Amino acid sequence: MFKVVLSMAVLAAFCLPAQAQFAKPEDAYKYRASVMFLQSQHMGRINGQLKSDKPNLALVAENAAILDTVNKLFFTAFPEGSDMVASSRAKPEVWSQAAKFKQYADRLNGDVGKLLAASKGGDLAATRAAFQSTAQTCKACHDDFRRD
Amino acid sequence: MFKVVLSMAVLAAFCLPAQAQFAKPEDAYKYRASVMFLQSQHMGRINGQLKSDKPNLALVAENAAILDTVNKLFFTAFPEGSDMVASSRAKPEVWSQAAKFKQYADRLNGDVGKLLAASKGGDLAATRAAFQSTAQTCKACHDDFRRD
Repeated sequence: MFKVVLSMAVLAAFCLPAQAQFAKPEDAYKYRASVMFLQSQHMGRINGQLKSDKPNLALVAENAAILDTVNKLFFTAFPEGSDMVASSRAKPEVWSQAAKFKQYADRLNGDVGKLLAASKGGDLAATRAAFQSTAQTCKACHDDFRRD
Repeated sequence: MFKVVLSMAVLAAFCLPAQAQFAKPEDAYKYRASVMFLQSQHMGRINGQLKSDKPNLALVAENAAILDTVNKLFFTAFPEGSDMVASSRAKPEVWSQAAKFKQYADRLNGDVGKLLAASKGGDLAATRAAFQSTAQTCKACHDDFRRD
């Protein structure tokens, strides 16, 4: 049994991109939870700007650039079996519907790319639209892939 | 009393750079702990490459680029008073010796800049040297500013 588990781990290490390598499932969980906390903080800062009387789009762009980097880290942190970590709320569908999960990753990158471009370009209406779309993507992915 | 606390919070919100704004000290602690976990994971991946028989400098550069972004987030997450969060190991010197703490931030950014340049340029010896220097900066800062 131990040999089988080990072989699968070795196989996984070769098949996954380098970014996805974790010493243990707990590290993968902690990594994605860390990234999600950063995502929530920077989404919150953008929301704060967009709700203010005078949104500062340069600050929005600064936060969007950080999101653009950390979003890509998030989706590297779901090695198979890491839903077994006690605190994890990842549904088994993350792996059984991997193509759909990947679509959310692409959609999020697209949304945040638009958010970054719009805020950099000083276009408030496009920034608001891209932010709404980003928030909707977050929620839709949580609905489909995160346990309550 | 409530009014005094509120005024100081409002004042702090105006004085601090936007990146440093947190709803509560616990968020600042969680933010820097999240960033430090990412830092430790990516330092570990670089170390793994440099210890291997055939270090892949493109992978080192990929990890160094992530460090280069998240290092800058780390030092935004020390609002005054956030050493009072139960889990925080930040020493009061973070604030009483703020200039020295800032020097470590600059030193770390410099080290990781060199690590990124050396690994991108395919220079293994310079990559090793910059990685050692980065690790020493981490340790020196922990010795001075983190409780045991």
